[in-house]
Amino acid sequence: MSEQVRQAGKVYLVGAGPGDPGLLTIKAADVIAAADVIVYDYLVNPETLRYARRGVELIDVGKRAGHPSTPQTEINRILIEQARAGKTVARLKGGDPFIFGRGGEEAEALVAAGVVWEVVPGVSSGVAAAAYAGIPLTHRGAASSVAFITGHDSPQKSRRAIDWSVTAHAADTLVIFMCAETIAEIAGHLIEAGRDRATPIAIIRSGTYAHQEVYTGTLADLVATESCDLHIASPAIAVVGEVVALRYTLAWFGSAALEHSLASLAPQAQTASR
Amino acid sequence: MSEQVRQAGKVYLVGAGPGDPGLLTIKAADVIAAADVIVYDYLVNPETLRYARRGVELIDVGKRAGHPSTPQTEINRILIEQARAGKTVARLKGGDPFIFGRGGEEAEALVAAGVVWEVVPGVSSGVAAAAYAGIPLTHRGAASSVAFITGHDSPQKSRRAIDWSVTAHAADTLVIFMCAETIAEIAGHLIEAGRDRATPIAIIRSGTYAHQEVYTGTLADLVATESCDLHIASPAIAVVGEVVALRYTLAWFGSAALEHSLASLAPQAQTASR
Repeated sequence: MSEQVRQAGKVYLVGAGPGDPGLLTIKAADVIAAADVIVYDYLVNPETLRYARRGVELIDVGKRAGHPSTPQTEINRILIEQARAGKTVARLKGGDPFIFGRGGEEAEALVAAGVVWEVVPGVSSGVAAAAYAGIPLTHRGAASSVAFITGHDSPQKSRRAIDWSVTAHAADTLVIFMCAETIAEIAGHLIEAGRDRATPIAIIRSGTYAHQEVYTGTLADLVATESCDLHIASPAIAVVGEVVALRYTLAWFGSAALEHSLASLAPQAQTASR
Repeated sequence: MSEQVRQAGKVYLVGAGPGDPGLLTIKAADVIAAADVIVYDYLVNPETLRYARRGVELIDVGKRAGHPSTPQTEINRILIEQARAGKTVARLKGGDPFIFGRGGEEAEALVAAGVVWEVVPGVSSGVAAAAYAGIPLTHRGAASSVAFITGHDSPQKSRRAIDWSVTAHAADTLVIFMCAETIAEIAGHLIEAGRDRATPIAIIRSGTYAHQEVYTGTLADLVATESCDLHIASPAIAVVGEVVALRYTLAWFGSAALEHSLASLAPQAQTASR
């Protein structure tokens, strides 16, 4: 790095991983340790900030009790301003910055402003949440492809709309990010598009954290819960496909008390169990 | 961990990441440091072994000059045997163990043998190679979904065959793993299936390493190279979709001398430039 570049500051778009602080990369920890300023949002585990040096400036651009998150243009402005002031900036994002992390948009803004930057890929939340729920996304005989799709329940609704008639058959395994509020509706779309009603689904809330919750059942079970008051809080990721059934053999992490059967949550089942 | 479990050994299925040693996770480094035995293959950067303790037993199950890699059943046998001998075993895999890493198969074998195990997700090679080539896999207005597919050019040809007529439209962005020998043929399948001939493609060889090579052009350019002697050595990953064009703005890593234009490699272009 030339002296001129150092003076001009630099922005690192850093994947902070899915939650388990052990899944932070060594490079991410190094960047956090070197940063003058850390810009982070609500999907970043605050424990990752323990690598930061004393006196670091922390800028929280995430949601706060009822207030929306900082608009993207404002985040871009902060990153550019801090870099122009000569600061080393760590922009921390949950998971990986280039998978539904809007990292590409921030990178474009930095390039347009002439700011030096680089990206530090992270462990994707979708991959890790599935792994901690005992679900391999690909598996011999069960899945030779996997698609990552957004469930669009974030404030970032500006993406291209999903054509579920195509997406339903996109891959053997579907991983649907940010789907807490939309997954029951999406399950309906998948069935309408011809995906088998009996296809297994797992919804993983707070994946890789000790308080990870897992809801399992079939697409039909999930649709049946629409009339009841099933509420799954963010952040949630769903995995759809035959690989979900491997969980009954391969589950290795988490508390059995935090596992839920979708079938038992549907109104009919609730009545039966009363 | 109970004393009984400790005595019985344990196997960690560890994602060693894409190559850049900085993209190893903190947990992976800790597991490598704690291991009595490390079982690794040819996609693992040997630099990651520097975290191992003195006297660790190293078992290489990768390809060696002309010899095939160790059969999966033999790898399973080694893992089980070492764990039963009371060893802490780190089974290192390139990228992530549950994305085309056959980690699920090894986990099934361990469960069947009663061996305690866990998985340490890693940064996926597909995600990181794209990021180091300046390609966000999702991007506002360009891609709201991404599919990971295997190019099947590994010795592991036992997976379910790919139906390219469906897979071609699986997602806005396609990431094709292990495709060094098959990518020109696959480009033909994608065009036959109706994907635009002008769709941008990047083939990334040794992604995230200093010697990373990037071939860029269109699907049609790649098909045109079939008649010439273009040879891309493993490991290679391809990214197909509009996001590839962002590379011309967002490239930040690697040597310009290792960037190649597919159009200039096709026979006609070669003739024209002579």
